[in-house]
Amino acid sequence: MVLDLPTPCVIVDGDVLDRNLRTMATAAAGRGIALRPHAKTHKCVEIARRQVELGAAGLTVATVSEAEVFAAAGLDDLFIAYPIWPTPQRAARLRELASRVRLRIGVDSAESAEALATAVPGLEVLVEVDSGHHRSGVTPAQAGALAATAENAGLTVRGVFTFPGHAYGPGRQRQAAQDESAALAEADGPGVRSGGSTPTVALSGADVLTEIRPGVYVFGDAQQLELGTCGWDEVALTVLSTVVSRSGNRFVLDAGSKVLGADRQAWATGFGRLAEHPDARIVALSEHHATVALPDGVPLPHLGDVLRVVPNHVCTTVNLADELIVTAAGAEVDRWRVAARNANT
Amino acid sequence: MVLDLPTPCVIVDGDVLDRNLRTMATAAAGRGIALRPHAKTHKCVEIARRQVELGAAGLTVATVSEAEVFAAAGLDDLFIAYPIWPTPQRAARLRELASRVRLRIGVDSAESAEALATAVPGLEVLVEVDSGHHRSGVTPAQAGALAATAENAGLTVRGVFTFPGHAYGPGRQRQAAQDESAALAEADGPGVRSGGSTPTVALSGADVLTEIRPGVYVFGDAQQLELGTCGWDEVALTVLSTVVSRSGNRFVLDAGSKVLGADRQAWATGFGRLAEHPDARIVALSEHHATVALPDGVPLPHLGDVLRVVPNHVCTTVNLADELIVTAAGAEVDRWRVAARNANT
Repeated sequence: MVLDLPTPCVIVDGDVLDRNLRTMATAAAGRGIALRPHAKTHKCVEIARRQVELGAAGLTVATVSEAEVFAAAGLDDLFIAYPIWPTPQRAARLRELASRVRLRIGVDSAESAEALATAVPGLEVLVEVDSGHHRSGVTPAQAGALAATAENAGLTVRGVFTFPGHAYGPGRQRQAAQDESAALAEADGPGVRSGGSTPTVALSGADVLTEIRPGVYVFGDAQQLELGTCGWDEVALTVLSTVVSRSGNRFVLDAGSKVLGADRQAWATGFGRLAEHPDARIVALSEHHATVALPDGVPLPHLGDVLRVVPNHVCTTVNLADELIVTAAGAEVDRWRVAARNANT
Repeated sequence: MVLDLPTPCVIVDGDVLDRNLRTMATAAAGRGIALRPHAKTHKCVEIARRQVELGAAGLTVATVSEAEVFAAAGLDDLFIAYPIWPTPQRAARLRELASRVRLRIGVDSAESAEALATAVPGLEVLVEVDSGHHRSGVTPAQAGALAATAENAGLTVRGVFTFPGHAYGPGRQRQAAQDESAALAEADGPGVRSGGSTPTVALSGADVLTEIRPGVYVFGDAQQLELGTCGWDEVALTVLSTVVSRSGNRFVLDAGSKVLGADRQAWATGFGRLAEHPDARIVALSEHHATVALPDGVPLPHLGDVLRVVPNHVCTTVNLADELIVTAAGAEVDRWRVAARNANT
């Protein structure tokens, strides 16, 4: 590293990122499944354009305001994978978007389908199916009836989608991918059958799915490392941080929850990992302190040493940053604005 | 509520906020302890000015960049309660700050004291003491020696400080406040003996402490509610959110970890609380979904209903927002920029 940057800051290895983008694009193409990456992970126009250049069918986003950011940058095929409730304000924004780009959104109730049809006549939707994550979506058995209601109300139903979020746990990926395929097959919609998430995407049923929507694969993170769904050589984003305090077998880095995010699943081994010390664990995290424990006998780093933290959940890390500092061979080569940061509405 | 705002968004009840500010200022004055509120919670110039107007001795901040934001706004007495490592860049920024405002910073090792003395000769420091939180700081018994080293190196030692962060747990406040007093008394520095945190501040030993540094008291949050250290009528900040999905005894709000923050202590009952449903719990949180469980028999809200979420840890919620929408009697009256958002360096 020849970087001399104020810490903490978020850096991206551009070579690793590009390799991750190409690997996923090639894999999807090879399996004959459309790739519609979830842009909530990176929130950067530069990465979105590269994904499309490599063959992505379009982008997935989580909110209307994320769609607005990417539409303004010329990305013209957007799926908002979210059960949006159309207030008058939001409906006006959806109409505006639908007039400029190919827009699809999620729907998971008859009531919201009817409200959407009134607010945005003819809007293209995908019916959300719950494949086991139990967050939103109807049961597969209910999907056909909801699709019919939506069509009758005046929406254009393009298919079904699911998020197998229950894959986020050790050893759960294969079952979650099977659940995903089974749910989409049972929903039996015409057209799109969209699924996928970074932990399941390699296991997705290519006989059922027509589209996958992974997000985290672009950067990797400590959750994926600990699930075994990415390798250390696939981690593209880290947080550069400085050792500010040390005692015993512990030391403190200046990267806290205000730069890393506080995400910690019950099965995670800590609040993040260290690129330079794979065996270390962040055992406590406060707003500006990451307390790191090293195995017995491993010498502590020095005060002032700069280390790279791999955050647990990279999507929330990116959402805290104003820009990503892009590196190549350890030197800064570019800065990308996190254009859709805080685009929550 | 007569608000018609895109959700999710962060709103502040200006009347509750001002009452919280006045109550703390009055209590500190009545006990003869200086109040130096931690501005990392609110990050707003408007609130900082009001704190000083009500008698605060100055502000506490966590980073050099937070100090720069508040110094630029005319706040002229700043304590960076953090063991800063002075890289050449950061040292230059500290010298600049020290030339414009009264600046103090924390120090917790001989090595950093010597580096700071070289980088910023004459800099005012407080020696950080560990009173039981075990994050940073020297033991009380080591404080005198470190103060002497710092003075010999060329720093100006103004006293000692501690953060009794181990107060963040049910029933731990009284013991943590006792530990805080004991540590500061044993450290036996001349001058400032600074402690305090929102959970302990009412219990702080006025016979030992000369200064308190609470932060969260300005807004309150779900952690304080669950610790019993703030009441529902003291919650000034909430996240306005919309019901977007519902089934069984659960519903989904559009406020996720990208607006609330993902903080969840092991003892917390969920990922946040609801102002309109004190018995409800946020049982799962993802980036744009808060899944809420209601007690059996309580009717679900309707799709499109707007509810106020009390985040678990308000400091990280504020750091995600670009602005706070200030209300009075349920109507918007102002917007305050989160001037020190992302000021982590």
